[in-house]
Amino acid sequence: MDRKLWEQLPVYRRLENEVKRHIADRRLKRHDRLPSESQLAAEYGVSIGTVRKALNNLVTEKIIYRRHGQGTFVSPRSRKGRILVVAGRYGADSGLGEDFLNFLFGALDEANSADLPCEPALVELEDFFRNLDDVRMIYPETVGVLFFRGHENLLRAEKALEKQELPFLFYGPNLYGEKSKRYSTVHHNEASVAALLAECYASRGFRRVLSLEDGNDITRARVRLLTEALAGSGIVCESRSWPELSRQPEELRRLAGEFDVISAAVTQTAIEAVQILERDLRLRVPDTIAAAGIDNTPGSWQLRPQLTVVDLCNGENGRLCIRKFSELITAGSRPFHLDGKLALIRRESC
Amino acid sequence: MDRKLWEQLPVYRRLENEVKRHIADRRLKRHDRLPSESQLAAEYGVSIGTVRKALNNLVTEKIIYRRHGQGTFVSPRSRKGRILVVAGRYGADSGLGEDFLNFLFGALDEANSADLPCEPALVELEDFFRNLDDVRMIYPETVGVLFFRGHENLLRAEKALEKQELPFLFYGPNLYGEKSKRYSTVHHNEASVAALLAECYASRGFRRVLSLEDGNDITRARVRLLTEALAGSGIVCESRSWPELSRQPEELRRLAGEFDVISAAVTQTAIEAVQILERDLRLRVPDTIAAAGIDNTPGSWQLRPQLTVVDLCNGENGRLCIRKFSELITAGSRPFHLDGKLALIRRESC
Repeated sequence: MDRKLWEQLPVYRRLENEVKRHIADRRLKRHDRLPSESQLAAEYGVSIGTVRKALNNLVTEKIIYRRHGQGTFVSPRSRKGRILVVAGRYGADSGLGEDFLNFLFGALDEANSADLPCEPALVELEDFFRNLDDVRMIYPETVGVLFFRGHENLLRAEKALEKQELPFLFYGPNLYGEKSKRYSTVHHNEASVAALLAECYASRGFRRVLSLEDGNDITRARVRLLTEALAGSGIVCESRSWPELSRQPEELRRLAGEFDVISAAVTQTAIEAVQILERDLRLRVPDTIAAAGIDNTPGSWQLRPQLTVVDLCNGENGRLCIRKFSELITAGSRPFHLDGKLALIRRESC
Repeated sequence: MDRKLWEQLPVYRRLENEVKRHIADRRLKRHDRLPSESQLAAEYGVSIGTVRKALNNLVTEKIIYRRHGQGTFVSPRSRKGRILVVAGRYGADSGLGEDFLNFLFGALDEANSADLPCEPALVELEDFFRNLDDVRMIYPETVGVLFFRGHENLLRAEKALEKQELPFLFYGPNLYGEKSKRYSTVHHNEASVAALLAECYASRGFRRVLSLEDGNDITRARVRLLTEALAGSGIVCESRSWPELSRQPEELRRLAGEFDVISAAVTQTAIEAVQILERDLRLRVPDTIAAAGIDNTPGSWQLRPQLTVVDLCNGENGRLCIRKFSELITAGSRPFHLDGKLALIRRESC
């Protein structure tokens, strides 16, 4: 804190901050006994009344607690800063819920087990936007905001958060160009996703890849990057729109005979394609054509054959996000940019 | 509060509580201006210093805020009591994640949109048990604990929560007998689950039902209740252990010829059964044998044919839980017992 500001604070506030600093530095640990009121008064050269006022406030904040006749002790967990995790309502019809929950539990577990100064707190998208101009007031102890995908939400909130001096982080694909330098990011590096798939297909000796996109920007970008990565290995990649192809089973049958593998830009698409091939067309995956998807949703292992996928490792990346974001918040440093973990999970389908 | 206790409180604490009560009663609303310090001093017959001390504490608690030169105002959302939602880590390998997230978002949305005095806060199972004896200290503002399934967790925590005078609620199946009267419950009424299925099968004219259990108490109880419900309609029900039957495809083929419908005690089992029938045995669902499951997980609509299921309505029931539990906490009343919503979702498989 600025020296001049510090000296404007009332004496009891300065004493409160001293105790908080000792706890943050671990000079005072959980259940440690504080010096007596008269010792504190002597040490800081203030009145007993001032000491008592400071301690009362710290008790109110649950930073310390009193045991009758025994003194004042440090609470076993000092109140943590909250990192608001903003997420839309992922219902049973989105398939995104499991990803998000893995992310959130990874972040929670990291905050607890590493005893980070910050912890994640779930906030619902609509509630967040209703209160966007009063984030610090409405969500007490907030020290940062984390967007789980939904880049358009981040752009909508950016100005208001900057005005409130709240740092924010985006977790999602690295498809937003220069803008992404303005805030912290943990990315799914989409070029690496493509490289993992290209390596897998090359190792299987595939020469022709059928790539399926879903008609949105992210899946189109994935198809483009995969095409580039495959070109490097001399593998041909043709793309189709799944919403159209899914209504043309006979065209799908023809393509299944022509290509080595279906590479779906999201796992949901791979699941649908495999189901149509196996059930309606009576073809076999991977005998007629192999299949792979992106994102290890429950469907990818519930299906027969179980699907080969690029796992976006949401649990691990939740840990990474909260750890690095906590460091940034504590140190007050500049935005960081990291690639999250990715892994190819090879199963029967490819 | 007990009259005698009240009179032992310091005057500034009594004044703080007065303001809080006015806010709780909505006599003071968000952004309302409080009377000036001198008005408050006169109204309550106390010194300006006492008023200032009380207001400072309320500012620290973020219940009110100051605007320089304009006075003191009620914060737009007073700090809410937290209902800890205890949940194990449901990874991508459990299939429970989507259910839990629907429940949690339902509860969050209800707390916000109905402006309830309590809001849900997610706590991870292991962290919760590490801090079981200090719940109020470790999780500030906690006013109650909600168990999302996991009845064994509730039993393990019961004594410690009672000692801390924290009410708790169990959301899950009604299969725990007399014990369930000791705490509040929102149940999946398993007899009603069975009745919904029995009604569905009777309306389809089915005469023979093959019921699959998973080797645990809940699925065995479900099979027993279904058998009873079907007996009432003169429908025969035979049960098999799925872990065994899934390793005997030819026995499954034989049974598929003999029975009208596979009734799986959880949807995951139905998904696996349909996949083996369609893919390995080249039989057709529902032509050879129909199929139904319990719980509307993503797999139930990702599969072809889409599955008929009893939906446990986790989103709606999350709303119900938080609303009723908030009422109980606010009124300090006795445990309640409610049945949650259920719905049959009829799809292609049955």
